[in-house]
Amino acid sequence: MSALPAVVPQAGMPTKVRIYEVGPRDGLQIEKSVVPTADKLEFIRGLVAAGLPAVEIASFVSPRWVPQLADAHDVTSGALVEASRTRMPVLVPNERGLERALAAGAREVAVFASATETFAQRNLNRGVDAALEMFAPVVAAAQEQQVPVRGYVSMCFGDPWEGQVPMDQVVSVAVRLREMGCASISIGDTIGVATPGHVTALIDALRAAGLEPERLAMHFHDTYGQALANVTAALAAGVTEFDSSAGGIGGCPYAGSATGNLATEDLVWLLTGLGIEHGVDLDALSRLSLWMAERLGRPSPSRVLAALTRDCTT
Amino acid sequence: MSALPAVVPQAGMPTKVRIYEVGPRDGLQIEKSVVPTADKLEFIRGLVAAGLPAVEIASFVSPRWVPQLADAHDVTSGALVEASRTRMPVLVPNERGLERALAAGAREVAVFASATETFAQRNLNRGVDAALEMFAPVVAAAQEQQVPVRGYVSMCFGDPWEGQVPMDQVVSVAVRLREMGCASISIGDTIGVATPGHVTALIDALRAAGLEPERLAMHFHDTYGQALANVTAALAAGVTEFDSSAGGIGGCPYAGSATGNLATEDLVWLLTGLGIEHGVDLDALSRLSLWMAERLGRPSPSRVLAALTRDCTT
Repeated sequence: MSALPAVVPQAGMPTKVRIYEVGPRDGLQIEKSVVPTADKLEFIRGLVAAGLPAVEIASFVSPRWVPQLADAHDVTSGALVEASRTRMPVLVPNERGLERALAAGAREVAVFASATETFAQRNLNRGVDAALEMFAPVVAAAQEQQVPVRGYVSMCFGDPWEGQVPMDQVVSVAVRLREMGCASISIGDTIGVATPGHVTALIDALRAAGLEPERLAMHFHDTYGQALANVTAALAAGVTEFDSSAGGIGGCPYAGSATGNLATEDLVWLLTGLGIEHGVDLDALSRLSLWMAERLGRPSPSRVLAALTRDCTT
Repeated sequence: MSALPAVVPQAGMPTKVRIYEVGPRDGLQIEKSVVPTADKLEFIRGLVAAGLPAVEIASFVSPRWVPQLADAHDVTSGALVEASRTRMPVLVPNERGLERALAAGAREVAVFASATETFAQRNLNRGVDAALEMFAPVVAAAQEQQVPVRGYVSMCFGDPWEGQVPMDQVVSVAVRLREMGCASISIGDTIGVATPGHVTALIDALRAAGLEPERLAMHFHDTYGQALANVTAALAAGVTEFDSSAGGIGGCPYAGSATGNLATEDLVWLLTGLGIEHGVDLDALSRLSLWMAERLGRPSPSRVLAALTRDCTT
């Protein structure tokens, strides 16, 4: 059996998509194990070699909050960002973080906002507005140095404390990040509760507020198995950038192979079947994710990875 | 957090869908464990109580081939088919099987054809045409007794031995089953390689051959994580019946929680989010699937079931 699906395009979808790989940052930051710097660099090199066009490699948040990524400086400087054709953004929480990131060699950064007050307070220790105020000088300073900024909006569909999140809250935060100067906005389904109608409606609302789909990335979690159904809806709505994590790393640490981030392999399979250009070598990526799963000491939650490595003829 | 997604319909989709539950037959027939008759009956009663409108409960294939379902007579007679408002079809391979099924109390049956020669030979021990000839008198005899027949077509997208399956092969088998008198046709992605563009194209081809979407059911496997993306495409194309298996039972027996059948819970989550009426009580179904997973001695591959039972606040 061929390890790739038949290619049958769907009318009305883009012909090319950018996969924005979040494994080394968003993935590793919530894994139980702390991965050694050398392994992180090998992981990043592998992702670049597998053809990923953008890899978020580190976070300059205080190591007190994210000890898994305390080596952000060494990872960033070791990744030889300037020498690579692959984009390698890093997450920065504030102006101090931006300075540290640029000193380590970063040429692209991201800030992380929330659509809900509760998550903003819990994750950023301040309200939605105060967080945006904190990011404004970061974005301005980055722009002065021609460093593009991506703005993340988390909890865009549901929030564990607040329940369903009103679309106008998401639109408001996304528009403010855009007005501040963010080059692209990543719309996050942090707890994985989105379904396709909700995705279409939110993209429509963002478009109506002046945020065209080409400015957006969609960041789906596969917690309830809906991520690829949601990608399908977002593709039909014209979105051309999707966040995912090699091997699906970054699952909930309290379950063996529980899922959080959409696995890049599963996304690649979908895009390949749809005939949408993505540039990723699935075999190379799968080998890399298996290697990382071994280092993390747990099976990958990726369905594609499981299927490709399974000894089963039916 | 609420255990249900926000309800946001998607334009152009049906408002109501029938879930055709295949767990007791298609699911249990490839599980390693043989489930006792009493447990099967408790499972079926639970599915009926959870609101499933159709439950395929048994197979009258020779116990030599499917020892897991050797108790087809006792299960069918024990399920009190006539007293229930839930449809309870059973699989029959030939006229002898039909007789046994009707004697046990079945009021609805299904036959199982293949779109590919190799799988027909391996699964039915005869070619595609010979298998259809074997089914013709079965369907005729059932019709004489006002017993509706469902026709399955397997390997409709890819085949492990033949690779990609040409759409006209699928259309040809589906049309012949329809002409023979099958009331509905279930289009199976037996190895899970379909992607949404392929789904749309095949449904269009079937419609062009006179098989309207209302006559079809789609039977997706989640092997590569694509099942719900494919359901989304099929809903947009007007299909209103979907096969799934409670808890996703019927995975490949060679991996701990590998996936085969789409889990009914994951399908219910999608339909609920889309505001599509399905009549299933997710909580009751989830409890039942957890009970069955315990009996099978392995975790359920359903993402929804994992998420609902996980001890994780992020």
